[in-house]
Amino acid sequence: MNDKKLSTEPYKGVRDFYPENMAEQRYMFEVWRLTAEQFGFQEYNASVLEPAELYRHKTSTEIVNEQTYSFTDRGDRAVTLRPEMTPTVARMIAGRRRELSFPVRWYSIPNLFRYERMQRGRLREHWQLNCDIFGIDDVSADVEIILLANEIFKNFGAENGLHYEIHVSSRRLLEALYDSLTLDKEIRLGVTRLADRKNKMEVDEFKRQMQSIAGETTSVILSFLNADNINVVPETIKDTPAYTEILTLINTMTDLDCQLVFDPTIIRGFDYYTGIVFEVMDLDPENNRALLGGGRYDNLTELFGGEPIPGIGFGFGDVALRNFLISHDLMTTDITSSRLAILPTEVKHNLAGEKIAQTFRTAGISTTIDLSNKKVGKKISLASEQFIQFVLVLGDDEIKTKQYKLKNLTDGTEISGTVEELISEITK
Amino acid sequence: MNDKKLSTEPYKGVRDFYPENMAEQRYMFEVWRLTAEQFGFQEYNASVLEPAELYRHKTSTEIVNEQTYSFTDRGDRAVTLRPEMTPTVARMIAGRRRELSFPVRWYSIPNLFRYERMQRGRLREHWQLNCDIFGIDDVSADVEIILLANEIFKNFGAENGLHYEIHVSSRRLLEALYDSLTLDKEIRLGVTRLADRKNKMEVDEFKRQMQSIAGETTSVILSFLNADNINVVPETIKDTPAYTEILTLINTMTDLDCQLVFDPTIIRGFDYYTGIVFEVMDLDPENNRALLGGGRYDNLTELFGGEPIPGIGFGFGDVALRNFLISHDLMTTDITSSRLAILPTEVKHNLAGEKIAQTFRTAGISTTIDLSNKKVGKKISLASEQFIQFVLVLGDDEIKTKQYKLKNLTDGTEISGTVEELISEITK
Repeated sequence: MNDKKLSTEPYKGVRDFYPENMAEQRYMFEVWRLTAEQFGFQEYNASVLEPAELYRHKTSTEIVNEQTYSFTDRGDRAVTLRPEMTPTVARMIAGRRRELSFPVRWYSIPNLFRYERMQRGRLREHWQLNCDIFGIDDVSADVEIILLANEIFKNFGAENGLHYEIHVSSRRLLEALYDSLTLDKEIRLGVTRLADRKNKMEVDEFKRQMQSIAGETTSVILSFLNADNINVVPETIKDTPAYTEILTLINTMTDLDCQLVFDPTIIRGFDYYTGIVFEVMDLDPENNRALLGGGRYDNLTELFGGEPIPGIGFGFGDVALRNFLISHDLMTTDITSSRLAILPTEVKHNLAGEKIAQTFRTAGISTTIDLSNKKVGKKISLASEQFIQFVLVLGDDEIKTKQYKLKNLTDGTEISGTVEELISEITK
Repeated sequence: MNDKKLSTEPYKGVRDFYPENMAEQRYMFEVWRLTAEQFGFQEYNASVLEPAELYRHKTSTEIVNEQTYSFTDRGDRAVTLRPEMTPTVARMIAGRRRELSFPVRWYSIPNLFRYERMQRGRLREHWQLNCDIFGIDDVSADVEIILLANEIFKNFGAENGLHYEIHVSSRRLLEALYDSLTLDKEIRLGVTRLADRKNKMEVDEFKRQMQSIAGETTSVILSFLNADNINVVPETIKDTPAYTEILTLINTMTDLDCQLVFDPTIIRGFDYYTGIVFEVMDLDPENNRALLGGGRYDNLTELFGGEPIPGIGFGFGDVALRNFLISHDLMTTDITSSRLAILPTEVKHNLAGEKIAQTFRTAGISTTIDLSNKKVGKKISLASEQFIQFVLVLGDDEIKTKQYKLKNLTDGTEISGTVEELISEITK
């Protein structure tokens, strides 16, 4: 039919999810969903296709220029495969600002696309839980969103302080520091960008570069960036609302049994953050990166006109989470499987098997049937490998007498009876 | 910040799913998933990005040339947003042909992309349930896949014969007819293409065009295409295996309480079908189109080399299903909502509210909190609009005494107590 064989490989940098891979995805998404809904968050979604102009504003210039999948459609529209969800959710919130009752709590699990070089934990497509609260600029929303992040980890069986830490800082507090030093706009930008890279640099090199940007204010800036506790930041910023806010946040979270680590090097690259910023860090030294990151962005809907709607939220990627769960032995490997397998001894009994299977299914018992021409012994061992609990071998005798044997592969017991008797045995 | 306001509209031809729209999607996907798993199907997935060459073979030339989203990536690879799932699943099956234990039953709910003009029920992106059985060329697999399709409709509350009908035919039987008439390849193609359009044409015009293609064999062909019952097809094809197969299928399904309608005009456009083909038709005259379609395609994995693996499956789109459910009044409009809303009387009580909310959540009660500065009466009516069952108003007194009133919005009753007492009341 064709001269050349097609490759069975997926497109470079994306994943095929065979049922055993899908089982992991389903487990992760299920915990995400259940926890978000426990907090009253509602699920939304949108297309992966977005007008390219959505990413051409303000923030993500680097992303649009170098890292997006963008193309022109047949109607000459510039289209981008969404690289992040926040612009989409801001667009949707802005589009219904008059109809929605704020506060709005929304979550979604979109797939996101970036054209980038391969490295561990970085693919061209990944899925990400996005949770956001819109319409509240009070610290109680910050408390709630971080509490939700922590609860998700707890629901995966992870422990704060043992498996992960939650690091927080405040962009508003950083601005208060800059104000106290009366830094101009350009220096603020340079200091912020450098601070973002602090943990990726040698200490001396970091100091040298900071000195060249910040001059005589360097020592105050360094004393802030080196603070490992909210109480030891420079005194000059302790009477600011930004300080009160983060102090309230940290203390309230401690009351709620959720320890936060003050970490002034948390900057979060995107420049749309305006208040509290946070990251959940994996404590496994092998996986030394943020698992989850977020913060407050109070001006994002401005792009669409009207009064800005305050927002706070986070993103939590599936690839980083999967590495985290596996390295801490917290991943489940349960794959969905049927409760019962009907095993015809010969192919000519397949149709009779379908009829019996249907009776079990109607009774609410998930039932599969091995339609292959394998020997029965092989069929039983395959059912066992697939964690199927019960098997029913179907041969001439069974079809004639309508008496069937049900074997429990878990404990090796066996019972006999009509289909109805076996159904009541399984469901009892 | 910007001179020009961004539009809040999504990209043309795709949908935003606000929580109320998402509730419908979730309901449809949930019934799809539960039913497929009841039949022992396992979920898989893949990326929307596929190598463009996957669609350049054999079948879908029209689709690739005119209707796909295809572009070249920054590494000069030709990429296509998948327009259908079957090539992807064939690729994945072929890629693991040695590791998989056949028969394999797989399902997925992918989003698919087509660049096409707008019309009712046709969008540029839609979701589609895909269910397939690989590795079985026996009619029992055909029985099972159609039984699954029927069961899905039953689980949506729809009734075969009242809301929908299942139409079947056989490409193999059509070939048997052509063989009996010794038609050459070109005429077969012309007749098949015309037959596919039979219900879209005037009867006389159809006859005229058939006459010009099929000449003296026209009357036999028409007597086949007009058959409304498997028993009245031309006698010359009644002793073929293809006839026995479809007869067995129809009779077995009748035994299983699932009536099929023999409909020789069911062709299914894609030319990869090789056996039984079927469509589920909406009986609402306003929605006169196939809701679900599928069939047997035994040669599809050949494209990837190796022995062909027989397959049978169907696709079932979300847009057509949604129209069906709404027009027959079978759509659920339940939106996920919290069980309990904490309503602080003032913003200063929000943090206390978060702490109480967390206690309820830890006890397994989905809890939200209205952090806005709205009046309490307004907060109660919003909670009621969102179908929240319980509200707890939190003011100075409650915080001081730690005694709270829990109001049941469903029946208007009210009880008082500590948080622990209220939890046991809600969960009892």
